[in-house]
Amino acid sequence: MARLVMKFGGTSVANVDRIRNVARHVKREVDAGHSVAVVVSAMSGKTNELVALCREAAAGPVYDPAEYDAVVASGELVTAGLLAIVLKDMGLAARSWQGWQIPLTTDDAHSAARIENIDGAKIVDGFKRGEIAVVAGFQGVDEDGDITTLGRGGSDTSAVAVAAAIGAAACEIFTDVDGVYTTDPGVCPSARKIDRITYEEMLELASLGAKVLQIRSVEIAMKYNVPLHVRSTFSDAQGTWVTGEESALEDVSVTGVAADKNEARVLLVGVLDQPGVVAGIFGAIAEKNISVDMIIQSPSAASSAQAAGEVRADVTFTLTKTDLPRVRPFIDELALRIGAREVRYDEDVVKVSIVGLGMRSHAGVAARMFAILAKEGINIQAISTSEIKISCLVASKYAELAVRALHDGFELGKGAAT
Amino acid sequence: MARLVMKFGGTSVANVDRIRNVARHVKREVDAGHSVAVVVSAMSGKTNELVALCREAAAGPVYDPAEYDAVVASGELVTAGLLAIVLKDMGLAARSWQGWQIPLTTDDAHSAARIENIDGAKIVDGFKRGEIAVVAGFQGVDEDGDITTLGRGGSDTSAVAVAAAIGAAACEIFTDVDGVYTTDPGVCPSARKIDRITYEEMLELASLGAKVLQIRSVEIAMKYNVPLHVRSTFSDAQGTWVTGEESALEDVSVTGVAADKNEARVLLVGVLDQPGVVAGIFGAIAEKNISVDMIIQSPSAASSAQAAGEVRADVTFTLTKTDLPRVRPFIDELALRIGAREVRYDEDVVKVSIVGLGMRSHAGVAARMFAILAKEGINIQAISTSEIKISCLVASKYAELAVRALHDGFELGKGAAT
Repeated sequence: MARLVMKFGGTSVANVDRIRNVARHVKREVDAGHSVAVVVSAMSGKTNELVALCREAAAGPVYDPAEYDAVVASGELVTAGLLAIVLKDMGLAARSWQGWQIPLTTDDAHSAARIENIDGAKIVDGFKRGEIAVVAGFQGVDEDGDITTLGRGGSDTSAVAVAAAIGAAACEIFTDVDGVYTTDPGVCPSARKIDRITYEEMLELASLGAKVLQIRSVEIAMKYNVPLHVRSTFSDAQGTWVTGEESALEDVSVTGVAADKNEARVLLVGVLDQPGVVAGIFGAIAEKNISVDMIIQSPSAASSAQAAGEVRADVTFTLTKTDLPRVRPFIDELALRIGAREVRYDEDVVKVSIVGLGMRSHAGVAARMFAILAKEGINIQAISTSEIKISCLVASKYAELAVRALHDGFELGKGAAT
Repeated sequence: MARLVMKFGGTSVANVDRIRNVARHVKREVDAGHSVAVVVSAMSGKTNELVALCREAAAGPVYDPAEYDAVVASGELVTAGLLAIVLKDMGLAARSWQGWQIPLTTDDAHSAARIENIDGAKIVDGFKRGEIAVVAGFQGVDEDGDITTLGRGGSDTSAVAVAAAIGAAACEIFTDVDGVYTTDPGVCPSARKIDRITYEEMLELASLGAKVLQIRSVEIAMKYNVPLHVRSTFSDAQGTWVTGEESALEDVSVTGVAADKNEARVLLVGVLDQPGVVAGIFGAIAEKNISVDMIIQSPSAASSAQAAGEVRADVTFTLTKTDLPRVRPFIDELALRIGAREVRYDEDVVKVSIVGLGMRSHAGVAARMFAILAKEGINIQAISTSEIKISCLVASKYAELAVRALHDGFELGKGAAT
């Protein structure tokens, strides 16, 4: 009698017929002897509708985040209650749990709250009575008793956190795709479903994974070692398992290819290359809560303009494209203050990454990546690497070409062998 | 700085524009220096939509009442949050309160729960910070922490109970009509808005009042002596005050005329008239939780069938028409058991009532009522009286005629004088 968490997203509970389909998945596991906690999102479209009402009420983009949370968290209450009704109608014992009833406590960062604690006791008591727990996802309550929400995709995080709290053997994430792919199948027809992937790889495949899993949920799964199973609501086929175990196939160097179009490049030309200047730049940026991704420093190309005794450098960094309008005035002012000769912004860039645990032990993966891109005539504007990821910034017009070239170049469509 | 409760029904908060209109009403009272708690219903149509989803989920009329409550109570959360957003956008301090946050505690009679206690402390603390309390109506929480709802129109009851809990000077019920009328204006064009009415009269005018006020809310208002003001959301005009004070005009004998079409008549023919038999009938009916309204016992007309030494009577009573399908098999069985010769059911009846505190001191009001109905050729099938109400059961085809005749006969359209 293992404990199991099953999470169903908005498209899986879009109407009562689909909720019945969800109930059938749940019944299968209950019949197999498992104690099940189900975590549900709002019916698809519902959250958008509630967000639109909040915007209309505020007559502008500014609305009270606490009240926004109180409004948008209501969508999940409806789905949780309806699923409990359906399950009971099928003769199963079930009850719905609102975030505050569990309680699932969070900090007070409304609309993007982080889970602080989940008390699994009531759910486990229910298991002892043979009761299925139907948990409204996406929401919690802060220490003042105010409703909070966990941000878009937050139901994934609810599910993994519930799984950790009740010591579940696994957390199954049911969605409208049948797993995690080696790359976006819409871009690369030879993309292949991955059977097993590690938490680390899944985190690095963020720009792919964000479509199936909220990244925060993977972090929590990794922290508490909760096996995740990403699979389709509309079939019984196995999907992708995300676990702490490395692949048995030692020779797999690259697991997936991802493209992230939400980066913008900033180039500070001719920054005085003195100790502390670069640290000062990124210290000031961090203070503004601006997340910077790639950073490259190189001797300034504008050498002709260098005065005697001056050494100048060019500093390139990337940040989230949607942050740019907010932070641009600050960067302009910063550039002026540190005496940079010029600031250039480029939004026409894409970050293409290859990810794989095997990179650790396989030399030459980076060189092979650069060669594949060069063969296609794609100029690399910046490079960043981690132990299990290599990213190249390229002009956005090459996004799809680069993904297909790397996917085929590393032979990801051919299964586990490279 | 008086404390004030303002309650707005579903049509008053049907969309964001109307919620803005509600906010203007609230701002007017705040600007006048009052501390305001606003109680809101779900947007009109929303509760019906949620009820329909529950029915669809259960694939039949039976659904779990606890889950039903968890689902339908969500509608009010949306309106409360949106109104708080609008008020803040107008520069006013405000926050929404869900039933469990206050807490508003009830018994566990899901879908028709009765309020047991309201803690007004958090709302009053908010007043001290200059904060408007926006309370989600219709809902509470039982001692197990499960969501409950108060039944249709329950937001009126929430509002009055909040008013009692915080010691409000008045509870204003904003609705889509401009007050309580002497009778249904749709039936009787000369119907007149009543300026002041007592709790007792309002309770007796149930079948009128139910369209504007949940009866339970009037009971609580009477118990805690909370003045009610029924008025229109769409104007600033005074509506109807419902208070404990009798009218200053001593000569007003009749205040209003009501017709209740939701009664059915049951006739038990030839019941043995022995001590205890009638008590047995109504004891058995009460045990089944069937509410009986009028009761008449008369010597049986079926005298020819009476055996020597037997005295038989006919027993007539009325009950709620919507209850009839459920209770009819039980009554049939009961009639057989007590040896009644026959059971007759009649759903084509209407109960026409005149209501007024002045009846207590004015003899002859009943006689005048019977004369007015007789003049129109309307046969009276049953009569029941209280200190401030006289009801006559007549054939349903006479409903409108009887209401108009009584309204004009008691000169209710002419203002306060009769």
